[in-house]
Amino acid sequence: MSKQDRITPRTLKGFRDYPPELALPRERIIETARHVYRSFGYAPIDTPALEYLEILTGKGSEETDKQLYRFTDHGSREVGMRFDLTVPLARFAAQYAQQLGLPFKRYHIASVWRGENPQKGRYREFMQADFDTVGSTGVASDIETVVVLHTLLRACGFERFAIRINHRGVLDGVLDKAGLAGRSAPVLRALDKLAKIGPEKVAEDLKQTAEASATQIDAVLQFASLTGENATLLAEIQRLVAGNATGEAGLERLRETLTGVAASQIDPGGEAAVRIDPAIARGLDYYTGLVLETLLTDLPGIGSVASGGRYDNLAGLYTSQSLPGIGASLGVDRLLAAMEELGQTGAARTPADVLIVYFAEDRLADYLRLSATLRAQGIATELYPEPKKLAKQLQYADKRGFRVALIAGPDELARDECQLKHLATSEAISTPLADVVTTVRRLLDSI
Amino acid sequence: MSKQDRITPRTLKGFRDYPPELALPRERIIETARHVYRSFGYAPIDTPALEYLEILTGKGSEETDKQLYRFTDHGSREVGMRFDLTVPLARFAAQYAQQLGLPFKRYHIASVWRGENPQKGRYREFMQADFDTVGSTGVASDIETVVVLHTLLRACGFERFAIRINHRGVLDGVLDKAGLAGRSAPVLRALDKLAKIGPEKVAEDLKQTAEASATQIDAVLQFASLTGENATLLAEIQRLVAGNATGEAGLERLRETLTGVAASQIDPGGEAAVRIDPAIARGLDYYTGLVLETLLTDLPGIGSVASGGRYDNLAGLYTSQSLPGIGASLGVDRLLAAMEELGQTGAARTPADVLIVYFAEDRLADYLRLSATLRAQGIATELYPEPKKLAKQLQYADKRGFRVALIAGPDELARDECQLKHLATSEAISTPLADVVTTVRRLLDSI
Repeated sequence: MSKQDRITPRTLKGFRDYPPELALPRERIIETARHVYRSFGYAPIDTPALEYLEILTGKGSEETDKQLYRFTDHGSREVGMRFDLTVPLARFAAQYAQQLGLPFKRYHIASVWRGENPQKGRYREFMQADFDTVGSTGVASDIETVVVLHTLLRACGFERFAIRINHRGVLDGVLDKAGLAGRSAPVLRALDKLAKIGPEKVAEDLKQTAEASATQIDAVLQFASLTGENATLLAEIQRLVAGNATGEAGLERLRETLTGVAASQIDPGGEAAVRIDPAIARGLDYYTGLVLETLLTDLPGIGSVASGGRYDNLAGLYTSQSLPGIGASLGVDRLLAAMEELGQTGAARTPADVLIVYFAEDRLADYLRLSATLRAQGIATELYPEPKKLAKQLQYADKRGFRVALIAGPDELARDECQLKHLATSEAISTPLADVVTTVRRLLDSI
Repeated sequence: MSKQDRITPRTLKGFRDYPPELALPRERIIETARHVYRSFGYAPIDTPALEYLEILTGKGSEETDKQLYRFTDHGSREVGMRFDLTVPLARFAAQYAQQLGLPFKRYHIASVWRGENPQKGRYREFMQADFDTVGSTGVASDIETVVVLHTLLRACGFERFAIRINHRGVLDGVLDKAGLAGRSAPVLRALDKLAKIGPEKVAEDLKQTAEASATQIDAVLQFASLTGENATLLAEIQRLVAGNATGEAGLERLRETLTGVAASQIDPGGEAAVRIDPAIARGLDYYTGLVLETLLTDLPGIGSVASGGRYDNLAGLYTSQSLPGIGASLGVDRLLAAMEELGQTGAARTPADVLIVYFAEDRLADYLRLSATLRAQGIATELYPEPKKLAKQLQYADKRGFRVALIAGPDELARDECQLKHLATSEAISTPLADVVTTVRRLLDSI
């Protein structure tokens, strides 16, 4: 092929590749999410990346409609790529309501696509890890949602984060008392931007989109700015919603949620906290109860890495069956971006611990047997594929991040021995082949 | 919402949903592939679902071009959804050749899309699990490719399958001696259909597309119909390629591959065999060495569940750097379809073992604590989210496939006890709360 016929290898704007040094920690997040969700009884589902366009449009916001990847397929069908995992869940739950039975607890870990303008750490394709309990209105699911997220963040290696919770009932109570009852949708959408754009701009927004008066704006912003320990906030909110049934019921539910979280032995105090935050509103109209976001203490600027809330009716657009529930979504790629920024992704580019050096060309069978022996004992082992120079193979081992190199030349093999090189320290030891598994294990444990 | 405004919840033609009873065994296949690939030192990568159209077109066959999901994106770019994982690997390897270093061993488990006419067990979206060693020409990688597939199929629970191997050098030698040297591309494409359409139609195809004479067709079909033990076939092929350098080199390589496989302790005899099959050609032009397919003994009609081969140059369309290598692909969803048909998918619809019954409304904190205790010991445990009637909760446990139900009413809790119900046998036993982990474990082990 001539040079000018060649195609430049490149990725689309706003998309990214995951080389091993990123794919390895990303798989760790995915595996951790799967493990944690499963440990609470959430079952996996998967749905197609493509849906009928009518399933997807008008289900998120005007913005998601605009960002939708849509086209006409080979059969002249109008189709779109999913932009979240909630709409597919709604469609799925409506379609199989009879077979599924309720409550239905599912997790779904998959990529979604949004043609938004790429920003630092945000791409047009990103992976989410959602979990939902559909068909339950009980507080036990509210509690569990918080506990799952807490367990998950901890299991991903985060020690400093805050799960910030609020309740739409409390917000409604406050708005009701401020005379904004009919305008909660625009008010909450404005409030949702508080952390991003600040109180002045939210005030402007409230005036314009919700036609709120100065007094009303004050009431909303004052409530949203409340800070303090959970006990203090519960008391303050009590005072603010007093006499309003919706507000008081929401507050009671928030209280029960915190009590349940405390009983769940996740140690939510200290630096991995569960905190009431009156400013958490969530933009979407369909939330009706608990709402939550998760901020990393060391990277607040990256925004919420896991968010969700309770809804009264998941799938009203597709079925007459009322499907209340609660769920949350971990932004896998946003969490990965956070780990990159915090230097937590590590440098390893191989999942294997041991590299067997292909030293003597005619001893391949021995190296194959040794590889099989180590693998059979659960030790991930790579055999270098060609009898290149020792130095080159050791350089490869270093660069990829193997921890141990196994070297066995004809002399060593004749003595039923091999050499093990601990790559971080360059220390080398001899071991009888009969003891190779034990010795490798000891080396790996000691590192 | 009025009934007539509702949207019918449905999936696109040729696409399917994965409910828990399918998603659970599918995740088992994916986890097994990941584990096996990692144990041999393959590292994960991921690439976008969407690529520039020019990256994708003309890289597979005319058919894949026709089946491509393509459209114009928001920025007026011509884009397409990937139809396999080999083209993205080629683009990736060319783009990062400098950073990656060679050899580069990667696996990639992801969905691909082809707008082909759906058939039984085949869909327009399906998941593949590819692994490749790029940058190596050694026989060790040929051997490893076979060993990985064998290990993987076994780990997925298959006992009866055959990895059928052949070598393009052998095929070329035979064609060369038959005077078909310049026509190997159409001949191999015709031969690739042998199992599907039979020798008569292949003969017709050879006549038309490769202008083969009756004698030449005979030579090709006679070679492709050879059967027997590996040793017999090696001798027969030796006779057929004698004097042809390409054919003899290919045969020697096939022999070395089998010797290496035998040294790798995977027990490839008996019902999980590695067999020479002269009829294996693989349709794609770019294979140049070992080619292989995997057939399930009990479901030959489903076709190959894992295929691959060696190539001289992975990414010639994108880079001047020569990238030889070898790889294979497991068809995750085809293997799942096979498991469904063979009744190997199981009936469980939950990943958890234990359901804690929410018995007494005011004892939620106790149930939360119990759930946490079991989970902390690695026992996946679901707490029923609402204090519904016992019978209803036990029915739920049965239907989902939980193995143990934990029941603790106020009386039992007052005595620091609970009841464990073994759901398959309906046997119930009492246990002190202090022993709950041990007793649950004993019950689970005994089932």
